[in-house]
Amino acid sequence: MKKVSVGIDIGGTNTVIGVVSDDAKILAEKSIPTNKFIEFDNYITTLRDIINELMLQVGNDFILRGIGIGAPNGNYYSGNIEQAPNLPWKGKVCLVDELKKYFDCKIVVTNDAKAATIGEMVYGGAKGMKNFVMITLGTGLGSGVVVNGNLVYGSDGFAGEFGHSIAIEGGRQCGCGKRGCLETYCSATGIKRTVFELICNENYPSKMRDISFSDLTSKDIYDFAKEGDKIALMAFDKTSEILGRKLADLVTITSPEAVFIFGGLANAKDLIIASTKKYMEQFLLPVFRNKVSILPSALLGTNIAVLGSAALVAD
Amino acid sequence: MKKVSVGIDIGGTNTVIGVVSDDAKILAEKSIPTNKFIEFDNYITTLRDIINELMLQVGNDFILRGIGIGAPNGNYYSGNIEQAPNLPWKGKVCLVDELKKYFDCKIVVTNDAKAATIGEMVYGGAKGMKNFVMITLGTGLGSGVVVNGNLVYGSDGFAGEFGHSIAIEGGRQCGCGKRGCLETYCSATGIKRTVFELICNENYPSKMRDISFSDLTSKDIYDFAKEGDKIALMAFDKTSEILGRKLADLVTITSPEAVFIFGGLANAKDLIIASTKKYMEQFLLPVFRNKVSILPSALLGTNIAVLGSAALVAD
Repeated sequence: MKKVSVGIDIGGTNTVIGVVSDDAKILAEKSIPTNKFIEFDNYITTLRDIINELMLQVGNDFILRGIGIGAPNGNYYSGNIEQAPNLPWKGKVCLVDELKKYFDCKIVVTNDAKAATIGEMVYGGAKGMKNFVMITLGTGLGSGVVVNGNLVYGSDGFAGEFGHSIAIEGGRQCGCGKRGCLETYCSATGIKRTVFELICNENYPSKMRDISFSDLTSKDIYDFAKEGDKIALMAFDKTSEILGRKLADLVTITSPEAVFIFGGLANAKDLIIASTKKYMEQFLLPVFRNKVSILPSALLGTNIAVLGSAALVAD
Repeated sequence: MKKVSVGIDIGGTNTVIGVVSDDAKILAEKSIPTNKFIEFDNYITTLRDIINELMLQVGNDFILRGIGIGAPNGNYYSGNIEQAPNLPWKGKVCLVDELKKYFDCKIVVTNDAKAATIGEMVYGGAKGMKNFVMITLGTGLGSGVVVNGNLVYGSDGFAGEFGHSIAIEGGRQCGCGKRGCLETYCSATGIKRTVFELICNENYPSKMRDISFSDLTSKDIYDFAKEGDKIALMAFDKTSEILGRKLADLVTITSPEAVFIFGGLANAKDLIIASTKKYMEQFLLPVFRNKVSILPSALLGTNIAVLGSAALVAD
């Protein structure tokens, strides 16, 4: 009998549950609206029923190896979700312990960026790599660091918060309460803030001058850049410069073989990958130069969140 | 029979060879002038003779477990010293392979800061810790990062060059060819540069105004600070602020339990440890606050270079 893994991606809006084969195929999948489950108990029994339903659906040739879960503020060590700002359950919920009441297999939770990192290692471009970094450029900047073939969880399970390293001292206000965090510059929201900064500081014409801050998306900025909009191109360049400089710092600490970029902004490959690499090289200690690749995730376009969560329980 | 380890600290001026017991005692020790050995072959046979001589000296109750070596630009993976600017042998020398011709035991080389890190883990304050960081504040800033109980070497053996992360973009010129590296601010030379910057920018009286840049030492700055010299006190504060901010970045990546400080500047415990901690807390993501200790190395005052090198081959 073949083994399969269940990957669960818990987001603020939806929870996606998928059954994943060892060759990275999602054999069955279902989605439920996370924010409709005010009662955590009800959420857990629904997850249980869906997992059983999906396993029935894939048929009797497969047995369940384990359940991997990616969730905001998911703690690998405790198995809990702790103080997740955009989930309906307040304080701490014992996700792994509750699911263990129903499934006698390996069950693991971590945050979404770490799940994506494991996904890249097990199914993606980092196969066989012992030392690499994953950067997810979404609403914020998430990261996962792999050292000696293992994901770095740190002493409390919260390692890999590179998005909250300081890019510019006293800089932009961050949702975490600090100022100048990397994710306030390098993320879908970060590049939008950069566009509006450039609109103030530069006189170049731009269609973005007619769009409000609330309405503008990072996809718009990409589209304008492709049309040759100077402000949009400058915003991509500035984003690459700051990301490149901070990645150079990260390289001095862990010396990875490669940095993978995932998330909405990574789809703008031609405007962000090569330029980030160029700036990183400028700030690198000579001993690291021309050694570290920057690559788009090999899993762009897939449901990396579900694949990565499933990969958490891979053999 | 008890096992002992040999620790060798290769410095630009001297090489110190010590036989170290498992309870961190140096049982026998000898020093030779590194820069007198222009011929690498001659250096190796001298090391061989001294190791044999010291083992005879400690007596027949002990057998040699292994030889650990801390050397500038020592590469753990290759066993070579590569392009060390202040050693007499140019290019690459095959240190481990050459010594293996004479000794049938484990022989390992790494750089001096990494050796100190292992020393802290095996004999010092980091005993039992799985995740910690070591910072050595000497002429430069060296570092070692331990994750899941293992020292991080990275993909090429050169991880842990935190001293060359960027503290201030476009800042002070560094010996590595870049500008703004952390060690140009936080090290014995860094604090001296800060003193001279303060002398230019501030009008406070200071005896240091009568001392040349070449003559002033970090020990002097400490002594003046203890006498209440305002410029010296400000220099310690500025050093702590920059180190604290950059340590906050490092914490977001690896989430260590503690940061240990070693080296000349660490002797100024009262002026650097608490203030670095204060600034680090200011820049930390809330989830990490009040979790990470900053501690002086428990091996201050010992020959950590020899102990750490010996610890490289500990069981």
